[in-house]
Amino acid sequence: MAANDVQALVFDVFGTVVDWRSSIIDEGRSFGERLGVSTDWARFADSWRSRYQPSMEAVRSGKRAWTKLDELHRESLLALLEEFEIHAISEADIDHFNRAWHRLRPWPDSVPGLTRLRTRFPLAPCSNGNVALLMNMARNAGLPWDAILGAEPARAYKPLPEAYLRTVDFLGLVPRQVMLVAAHNGDLMAASEQGLRTAFVARPTEYGPDQTQDLRAEHDFDYVASSMEDLADQLLSL
Amino acid sequence: MAANDVQALVFDVFGTVVDWRSSIIDEGRSFGERLGVSTDWARFADSWRSRYQPSMEAVRSGKRAWTKLDELHRESLLALLEEFEIHAISEADIDHFNRAWHRLRPWPDSVPGLTRLRTRFPLAPCSNGNVALLMNMARNAGLPWDAILGAEPARAYKPLPEAYLRTVDFLGLVPRQVMLVAAHNGDLMAASEQGLRTAFVARPTEYGPDQTQDLRAEHDFDYVASSMEDLADQLLSL
Repeated sequence: MAANDVQALVFDVFGTVVDWRSSIIDEGRSFGERLGVSTDWARFADSWRSRYQPSMEAVRSGKRAWTKLDELHRESLLALLEEFEIHAISEADIDHFNRAWHRLRPWPDSVPGLTRLRTRFPLAPCSNGNVALLMNMARNAGLPWDAILGAEPARAYKPLPEAYLRTVDFLGLVPRQVMLVAAHNGDLMAASEQGLRTAFVARPTEYGPDQTQDLRAEHDFDYVASSMEDLADQLLSL
Repeated sequence: MAANDVQALVFDVFGTVVDWRSSIIDEGRSFGERLGVSTDWARFADSWRSRYQPSMEAVRSGKRAWTKLDELHRESLLALLEEFEIHAISEADIDHFNRAWHRLRPWPDSVPGLTRLRTRFPLAPCSNGNVALLMNMARNAGLPWDAILGAEPARAYKPLPEAYLRTVDFLGLVPRQVMLVAAHNGDLMAASEQGLRTAFVARPTEYGPDQTQDLRAEHDFDYVASSMEDLADQLLSL
């Protein structure tokens, strides 16, 4: 079995562990109700997320110095408030809305699945989220991480090789001893190219009811699971 | 109250949270019994620790590239085995002994005190230990960290300013919002100089029965406590 040697699990977070879309829609509705703003919050959430990859690309390409995701999210939010013609919002309200990403809700199977997996393996995020975002999210949602790893400690956004390799190095392991768990084929392929093991967990409604991408595993990953509980069933029965 | 603004606690670990000396002495005895080696394990433990600061100094001064504490500990161990005339030990046995630092035992008040403090504050080590060492120690000892921070993610050994300031930055806070908890006057003074809050926890037997240093707080720290439980009493009653 390819994964016999695995000594730690690292996780993509946005989409894989937490349901960012429905969380951001609900945060938008609360924000709107409190401030008397009405708009299409599903479209707002999708637009915010659509700015995610382009905002990191400036950092990945070296055009821009290292910048935390909190700051990239905030720049995107300011642009979106303009685009959606939402005006006269205080700095404190903008900061609170931006920290909606610190309050994302886990999928229902995430906490029970992770809790079971943690009995066997050390667990850490390997996310593009910054440390404070991931730590606050974990405290809020009860995610049982053993360490907070990923882009900020590695100072490289996925899918750059350094994001995976520096995470492996922080764990004191070599790539074949670490398995990335993710709902995204591209993330897993990038990790696989660096020698990590891979587990696909399907999240077919991450992007809402009309999702067209990442509906299923498109490559020969080490594990394919329908939920974090299913992954725990598979890994703990080895 | 100076600490009203505190939003996270970070901790020195060796000596403050865990009792490295008695743990290393016991690990030495087990190592000796298993391999038929007899020596003064208390002197061995003290000698190992006495090489700690000099080994980091080469990295701090820039004479040596960034090197994890696990590797510095192993180099010191190899030198000590020579010095104590302990020969013909396998690489696997040396690695296991070196990882004694991953298995250090907490002081009896550490886990209950940290568990209570964590109900109010996010907690992270700000230690010179590397991430894998601190993560494995936490899993083994039940230390309830929210993140693993310190020298390795900061790429700077305490008491260099960057060790404290980058830890604060990972938390998404400013220095006055972070309090260092430590049993060492020098560590706390270095943190204070960077604007962090400070809490001294007395560990008068860290260096054994004849300890002469750090027996008490020698400066005007924000808090002075006799144990992690006492610190929890003080901070949770605010």
